Amino acid sequence: MSSIENFWAVIPAGGAGTRLWPLSRSSSPKFLHDLTGGGRSLLQGTYDRLAPLVDDRFMVVTGRAHRDAVSDQLPDLADDTIVAEPSARDSMAAIGLAAAMLEREHPDAVMGSFAADHVIADPARFGDAVRTAVDAARDDWLVTIGIDPTFPSSAFGYIHLGDDLPGHPGAAAVREFVEKPSEDVARDYLATGRYRWNAGMFVVRPRVLLELLAESDPAFAASLREIAADVSRLEELWPSLPKIALDHAVAEPAAAAGRVVTVPASFGWDDIGDFDSLATILGAAGEDLTVLGVADLVQAIDSTGLVVPAGGRTVAVVGLDDVVVVDTPDALLVTTRARAQQVKDVVAALKAQGRDQLT
Amino acid sequence: MSSIENFWAVIPAGGAGTRLWPLSRSSSPKFLHDLTGGGRSLLQGTYDRLAPLVDDRFMVVTGRAHRDAVSDQLPDLADDTIVAEPSARDSMAAIGLAAAMLEREHPDAVMGSFAADHVIADPARFGDAVRTAVDAARDDWLVTIGIDPTFPSSAFGYIHLGDDLPGHPGAAAVREFVEKPSEDVARDYLATGRYRWNAGMFVVRPRVLLELLAESDPAFAASLREIAADVSRLEELWPSLPKIALDHAVAEPAAAAGRVVTVPASFGWDDIGDFDSLATILGAAGEDLTVLGVADLVQAIDSTGLVVPAGGRTVAVVGLDDVVVVDTPDALLVTTRARAQQVKDVVAALKAQGRDQLT
Repeated sequence: MSSIENFWAVIPAGGAGTRLWPLSRSSSPKFLHDLTGGGRSLLQGTYDRLAPLVDDRFMVVTGRAHRDAVSDQLPDLADDTIVAEPSARDSMAAIGLAAAMLEREHPDAVMGSFAADHVIADPARFGDAVRTAVDAARDDWLVTIGIDPTFPSSAFGYIHLGDDLPGHPGAAAVREFVEKPSEDVARDYLATGRYRWNAGMFVVRPRVLLELLAESDPAFAASLREIAADVSRLEELWPSLPKIALDHAVAEPAAAAGRVVTVPASFGWDDIGDFDSLATILGAAGEDLTVLGVADLVQAIDSTGLVVPAGGRTVAVVGLDDVVVVDTPDALLVTTRARAQQVKDVVAALKAQGRDQLT
Repeated sequence: MSSIENFWAVIPAGGAGTRLWPLSRSSSPKFLHDLTGGGRSLLQGTYDRLAPLVDDRFMVVTGRAHRDAVSDQLPDLADDTIVAEPSARDSMAAIGLAAAMLEREHPDAVMGSFAADHVIADPARFGDAVRTAVDAARDDWLVTIGIDPTFPSSAFGYIHLGDDLPGHPGAAAVREFVEKPSEDVARDYLATGRYRWNAGMFVVRPRVLLELLAESDPAFAASLREIAADVSRLEELWPSLPKIALDHAVAEPAAAAGRVVTVPASFGWDDIGDFDSLATILGAAGEDLTVLGVADLVQAIDSTGLVVPAGGRTVAVVGLDDVVVVDTPDALLVTTRARAQQVKDVVAALKAQGRDQLT
């Protein structure tokens, strides 16, 4: 199948991934790591699954500190397609700047924004959903992809479906975006069959995105367009941009105004939020201890869970169930799958102690 | 108090300590390590507590591979007081050779044999027990020190007390040595008040020890005396010596023949058999996680147990009770106090895989 005409992939490559410490660090965040054991980083995996849809029409927005690493991992990207943010100002600024640049240089473009640190098991079905989304976006909708939930997660926001969208089979109106619910509420959502996970995937014409932003914050949209018109003003204007997520700045108000549609889809998505989620993706279950990395480094006796021997040393685990052991050259984590969310507390403690070189 | 006249300390410094892997290795066994956090190795601690009793009358018997390490750790020892075994042939050969050398060079000596890898909380009471033991040994008894048991351990052998020894207050006859019992049997032992732990501490005239050995194995005793008479024959004769523990070769038959007495004593003894035992010695209990080493390296959240950060790296433990984490530069162990005995299985597995450099 050929790529999608005039379709651009925007990849915001940010986020610390503190719940994946000590693998993920501020100096080497989650998206730069191969967490699936397939030999490609999450960023490279994102690139691999989008390339058939966009050919070379990529734009990666990342922190200045990670520009070289992104460039090294994606050598086929032209240098001017990697946009380096002077500082982290959340997703609206990052994706909005890409939109402003595309609007100026490629007025017919439709853009799709896909985080650099997610995994998708079935790229073909992902591609089908994106094609459907692009079709709807050409009609000036803000389109999101709604992931069929596989369990009542309290870790994700949800998309509440409305009526089917006429003329676009496979797309439906969005009533509203709802914040991460409790597990009980999530269970109720699933029972209705009308809720999908919000994976933060947005497909939209750049002009439409900026117009929606301008409705709530005209100065923000204007600043983004000024930077796109004269990149030398980036340093001057960037620090003044609001720190806000695209969901809050645009998607939620647009949904309330009936301007958002979604393409429900199922393609084995996960954002690898923590080591428990990583263990699930890697198939850790039952009586096995799963190793991400060189299996020969691990000696397991009567143990289950996940071991990441990324420090090059032998790791022996004796008599622990659902354990998580992550070994790196300068830091080691030992926890359980059930406590995986609390790993971010370690990072917070290290920061509080001024040991930022470890975070 | 002055030292004990003509009393020599013999320190057999051997044993792999495989249940303390990866701290203890065949290349750097348990006795060379500071396991109490006091800044002195177990060998040095043994030396420190014996020096007031013997001045410089030491003899250390160790493997050839550890000769230099022993010498480095005990710089006050004269070079000819460190006896290097060509190979490990168990405790009868090691202690018997020291006895044969002492018998020849110091006919009036009484020797006391004390393992290099035990800890004793109260050296003063230990010294008192040794003085009582030496007094009895001067009357040609084989004297052992019987540790007052503090719990029904199934990890130690026991000494069954007989009648008090006339003329030697504080000493009693030994009916028999009994092998490691089940916990139930140990509980019965403790209830009688007539059983003590066998810590392998023997105080005896060298001549008496060799005569007792000669009763069961005259060739063994003769070989030891031949080596003592002409050390150049060590290489030739050593490989032919039986591999047997002093307990089996001498102590058990001598007890059966009514030739053994014991000095019951209580001075906070432990052989640090595994990491559970080490955790107990270090005071790990309740809601604390105990660190052996640099406490600043450890980040503990909702965890109890023991962490040994001997690899210089930060170790974070989240949400685990009674965990044992031992970090070294080339190997890492994660287990629980309850499974600490099984650590030896890791060493066995590594050997079976031909990875001896890790064991």
